[in-house]
Order: sequence, then structure tokens, then C-alpha cells
Amino acid sequence: MAALLEQYRKRIQTELDRVVDFWMKYSHDEQYGGFFTCIGKDGKIYDELKYVWLQGRQVWMYCRLYRTVERFHRPEVLEAAKSGGAFLQRFARVQSSDGPGKCAFCLTRDGRAVKVQRTIFSECFYVMAMDELARVTGNEAMQADAESMMDQLVHWVRVDSSGLGRPQMPGDPPVNSMAVPMMLLCLVDQLTEGREKQAQKYRELGDWCVKQILQHVQRNDKAILENVSMDGKEIPGCQGRLQNPGHALEAGWFLLKYAKAQDDTKLQTLAVEMFMDVPFHTGWDKQHGGLFYFLDADGHCPTQLEWNMKLWWPHCEALISYLMAYSYLKEPALLDRFKQVYDYTFSHFPDEEHGEWFGYLSRQGEVVLDFKGGPFKGFFHVPRCLYMCEKMLDHLLEKIES
Amino acid sequence: MAALLEQYRKRIQTELDRVVDFWMKYSHDEQYGGFFTCIGKDGKIYDELKYVWLQGRQVWMYCRLYRTVERFHRPEVLEAAKSGGAFLQRFARVQSSDGPGKCAFCLTRDGRAVKVQRTIFSECFYVMAMDELARVTGNEAMQADAESMMDQLVHWVRVDSSGLGRPQMPGDPPVNSMAVPMMLLCLVDQLTEGREKQAQKYRELGDWCVKQILQHVQRNDKAILENVSMDGKEIPGCQGRLQNPGHALEAGWFLLKYAKAQDDTKLQTLAVEMFMDVPFHTGWDKQHGGLFYFLDADGHCPTQLEWNMKLWWPHCEALISYLMAYSYLKEPALLDRFKQVYDYTFSHFPDEEHGEWFGYLSRQGEVVLDFKGGPFKGFFHVPRCLYMCEKMLDHLLEKIES
Repeated sequence: MAALLEQYRKRIQTELDRVVDFWMKYSHDEQYGGFFTCIGKDGKIYDELKYVWLQGRQVWMYCRLYRTVERFHRPEVLEAAKSGGAFLQRFARVQSSDGPGKCAFCLTRDGRAVKVQRTIFSECFYVMAMDELARVTGNEAMQADAESMMDQLVHWVRVDSSGLGRPQMPGDPPVNSMAVPMMLLCLVDQLTEGREKQAQKYRELGDWCVKQILQHVQRNDKAILENVSMDGKEIPGCQGRLQNPGHALEAGWFLLKYAKAQDDTKLQTLAVEMFMDVPFHTGWDKQHGGLFYFLDADGHCPTQLEWNMKLWWPHCEALISYLMAYSYLKEPALLDRFKQVYDYTFSHFPDEEHGEWFGYLSRQGEVVLDFKGGPFKGFFHVPRCLYMCEKMLDHLLEKIES
Repeated sequence: MAALLEQYRKRIQTELDRVVDFWMKYSHDEQYGGFFTCIGKDGKIYDELKYVWLQGRQVWMYCRLYRTVERFHRPEVLEAAKSGGAFLQRFARVQSSDGPGKCAFCLTRDGRAVKVQRTIFSECFYVMAMDELARVTGNEAMQADAESMMDQLVHWVRVDSSGLGRPQMPGDPPVNSMAVPMMLLCLVDQLTEGREKQAQKYRELGDWCVKQILQHVQRNDKAILENVSMDGKEIPGCQGRLQNPGHALEAGWFLLKYAKAQDDTKLQTLAVEMFMDVPFHTGWDKQHGGLFYFLDADGHCPTQLEWNMKLWWPHCEALISYLMAYSYLKEPALLDRFKQVYDYTFSHFPDEEHGEWFGYLSRQGEVVLDFKGGPFKGFFHVPRCLYMCEKMLDHLLEKIES
């Protein structure tokens, strides 16, 4: 057992080092600050656009590594994070009439806005970046900036969404989309870590997020649906039947972590049984291995052209989920599940030649898009997974040894 | 030669009959009018949403078949078209403050707006539908409705796009996207057929569209790029390098038809050499056959997840292109090209069991999405291709016989 875990840890450590090296080497824009996000398999920049989700995530990840992993507590990691943070603070916001304002989705190399999404996610990754950067720099104004953006987000989600700019259509009533409470729960975790005052401030919000996420358990506990009505009912059509197994698995470890912190054993059981078992049974491809990207709960063909592709991030989230569940519950079946996902992931995604991981495979497991960074793939899911798994394995091995 | 063409014609006629049968049988909504557009492989409705592009296209196609093909000059075809037209006139528009207003992209079964795109295409298909329906019904108010929407479109494209609701971003200057002049040229063809007054009214617009389309010939005549700057230069990044071979081939036959009508031999040569030869050389998959969906002119991996899939509509457009070019120029190489596309298309897309065509294949040619109708696939590309090819083969065979 210890030997197996040690073997995992060794491989995961090595991968994390290679991934960090890749982004440190190729993604930094020394001229304008911030990070290039469109990076080919060999490190070449194929587009100078800077996607804001990915800027924020990279700042967060650098800071988290700097703050919590000794071998990454290096000045060049901190400097890179600060450069990204400065770029974000200077350019990400597109309007600042009242309140912290919307952030762009995409910027030119020199920071001009290219596109603004009518959703909350650019702003969410802005909060993550600024809060974590404030933690490593001790910059209180930056922490206040993060919190003020967080308050704006909560206002958009729970009070009035009109500031997002999406007109309400008569045939499209508001929907509880699982990404929204998941993202807010993740931010609650970020903002409250080790801070009593914030823990109290966001306590009610955390509980609300959990309730909103649990509404996605549908069909007599047999399916996690991505979109449900605001009162937690299944909605008709493709939108209502959509399943995204990797997303459900990600929600699983968010919930499990929250349950553990609140010492809520009922929620812990729900997290594992609903958000880890169900998406595996529905989402694992029994023929070719790997997790499907999208599925329809009635077995219709999804309308997303990429539905049967194997993407890197659902596999990253699955690894975190099963290892976290095993760490807490010590059920061997959970480690077996981790092993199954690990074997698929490590034999398909890492690029032995140039480092980092491919992101997009065909159903059969061949690389279909070979870039390392793109509009939605940056320095985030892979290193977060490797970092968290390494930490959990450290902890498991420590316990075994003692 | 005649035997080969006769064999093509027979197969194409049979396919057209089957495709018309499929949509007549499964897509009509007897309760609310209009057409279901999300239809599974066996005809089952898997979502009741009604996509407006597809409503307009289906009205157009029914009317065109009714008006110009004897065996489809049947009351039930006309009735279906009228039902779709009435549904569109009643529900498609979402605002009518001044001018004909924006059309929705998607409606509920009973006509409530679900989504509005900030582009011109819903309105374009509205024009196509109304004009063709006016031709078969003799309804002059309907023709005026089509023309008034057309004037609005031209205003949005050439004078002031602010009515589309897309804010201009400092990092995203206006772009000449090939779809826009292509679509307008198609509408010029629609509105002017057999009408001297309209032919004069839209003559300058037609020439403008041609000029805008020709700006997409780039890199010393070696590439057709989907997006160029407003003054016809290549733009940086993925957006500027994007190629869509099927779209270029569709532009090819639009241009060729216009060139023929204007007796413009220089444009005729450009249409064939630039918009039919170039996309075939860049877009045909030499390993597995079929046309790629997207390519990058520098050979980078496109960021569209579906880039290497084989879609039905590029193959439909290619068939029209090569057969039209052969009809006009009689060069055997063009018929060989038609044959190559025909063989791939007819051995991969038609569903022998339930009729109609699959729309989405993997690079290797397997069906990946098995529905017959979806958000972007309706009663349009397949029947328009079969209808136009049948007409052209009729004409070719007539000439051989006489």
C-alpha cells in the first residue's frame, strides 16, 4: 500500500515540476506583463490574446504554490504572480461606473478588452487571484479589492443580475446552473481560510451554495443534472437533461471539503454517493476508458459536438475527488477508483516530449488538439490537481509511517 | 458519361424524396404551427425548441421545391410552408420599436423568445423565407416585409451596427467576416430573381458583396481566410488564420452564379480557381477523406474542438460547387472532383435505415452525433444540395440527349 502511494507521489511530484517549468518558461510576457495563454505543444505562442479566466487562475496557482509548497517558495514564482496581478488590476475591468464593474473575458496582449461575457466567471477568477496574492504579499488593499468584487458577484447572483447585461427573455426563465454555486463555494473557501471574521461573514452564503448544488441531484438520486429550475426541479429539453460528469466530480470534492470543515457527516456521505459514484457510473466510457464530456440523462445524443471527447480537466477533478474521499473515508474502493482514473490519465494526457499535458482527446484516446494552452486551458486544472494530490499523498504516507 | 450522370441523378432524386418525406412526417407541429427542429435519428423529437434559422430555411426550401419541382407541387408542401411562415411572422421578432427589429435565434414551442444572437443571420433567413413564400402565394405585403427587413440588414452591415446590440470593444475592431457578404449576396440573388426593379435596386449591393468576399483571398492566392480586416488585410492570431473549407466552397458557387448572371468571365475564373481549387487543396483530408471543418493557415491546431470532424454541410456545398463549375466550364477535372466528394458523401452521411442524413462524423468517418435535426441542422443544406444537383443534372443530360 505505502509503496503504491509512494509511487503515485513520485510521479505526481515530477509532473508538477515539469508543468510549472513549462509555464514559467513559455507563458510570461516580459514586455506587457501578464501571461500568454495560447501556447502550442512545444511552447510556441500561437496567439497573443490573453484570456482573463486564465490570467486569474495562473496568479492564484503561482501564489498557492509559493505559499504552501517549499520547493516553489522562490522569488521568480512570486514575481510572476505579481506581474499577473498587476496586469489584471490594470486591465481586466471594462467598466467602473459604480461598484467594481464587469471584467473582460479576453484582452489583447497590451490589455485592451476584446470580449466581455455576460456571466460571472472572469470576476470569480479575479477574486481568487487577488485574494491569494494578498495572502502572500500581505497587501490589505488587494484583499479588500477581492472582497469588494465578491460582494458584487453575490449581488449579481442573489439580488439582481441585470448588471451582467443579459436581457431576460420570456422563453428563458432563470436557471440554477451548477457552475454558479460551485464557483461561489470555491470563493467562500478561498476567502475564509484561516480568517474568523470572513468565515462568519460568508457562512450563510456557503450554506446557500451547498443547498443550490444539492438541487442538482435528480431522478431519485440517479443523475446529477447541470441545469435545474430555480426551485430545484428538472427542466424540459436538452438543457435540463445535460450531464457533465467531470463537473459533478469537481462539485463532489468542493462539497466534501466543505462537509469536512463543518463536520457535517450527512453532507460528506451525499458528496461521495451522489457526486462521486453517480457521475462515474454514468460518465465512464466502458469501451475506451476515460470520462465523457457531456451526456444526456435520457440517452439522447447531446447536441455539443465535443460530447464524446476526453478532456483533461474532468480527469484532473476526478483524481482530486477520489483521493480526497479516500483520505477521509479510507474505503479501498475509493482508492481503486483513483487508480482507474490515474491509469487512464497518466497514460493519455502527459506529453513526454515537451512536458505539460494535452487537453483534448478523441473518444478513442488520441490527441485531437495538441496545444498546451488555449482559450479555456491554462495553468490551473493540471497543476491544481497535481498539487492537491501531492499534498494528500504526503498526508496519507505520513500517517502510514507514524 | 451520360450513364454516369444518369446514375447520379437517380440516386440524388431518391435521396431528395426520402429527405422531404422525413421532414414532412416528423417535423410539423400541428398544435402551435412551425417546425420542430430537434429530431433524433428515428424521427423522435428530443427537444421542443424551435430554432429560427431553421424555421426560415425550411419555409424557403418547401416553397422553392413547390415552385420549381413538379413532383413537389403539392398542397401539403405549400400548407407546411405557410404554417412556418405564419409562425415566423407572429413570433420571430423580439422588438419592433422602430424598423422591423431583431429576430430571436431560438423560440419555445409556443413562440416565446429564448435567445437572441447579436448577429444578422436569423433576420437573413427570415428574409429568404418571406420572399420565397411571397413568390408562391403572390402575397405582396409579405414581399414588402422581406424587403423592409433586407433594408434593415443592409443598414446594420453597411451603416450602423449598433442596433445588433454588440458593444464595440477597444481590442476588437470591426472585421470583415466572410459569412456576412456571402449571406447578403445570397439574399440579393433571392430578391432579384426575375424582378427588374429589384435587380436595379440591389445591383450595387451585389457588387459590394462580391468585393467583400474577394478580400478573403489572401497569401498570394494560396488561402481563403474567414476573417480579414475591413480594408482587406490579414489580421493577427487564430481569428485571422482561420479557414473553413466548406464555407469557401459555398462562397464559390455563390460567386460563380453571380458571375454567370452578370456574364463576368473574370469573376467566373476567380470563383473556380480561388474558391473551389484552393479550399480543396487545403481542406481535403488525404488520410481519411472528407473535408475538415476548420484549419489554421499556418498549420497550428485550431482551437475549435470540432476542427477535424467531417460535417454534412461542407460536403453539400462542395457537391453544388463542383457540379455547377462543371456545368458551366465542362472541364473533366471538375467532374472528377464532384465524383470524389460524391463518393465520400453518399457512402458516409445518408442513413439507410431511417432516411435523412447524419450530420457529424469523426475524422475517421464514424457517426458521432446521430440526430437528424439539431440547433444548426435542419431542412436546408441536404435538400438544397440535392435539389440543385438534380436540376443541374437534368440540364446536363438534356443537352447530351439533344
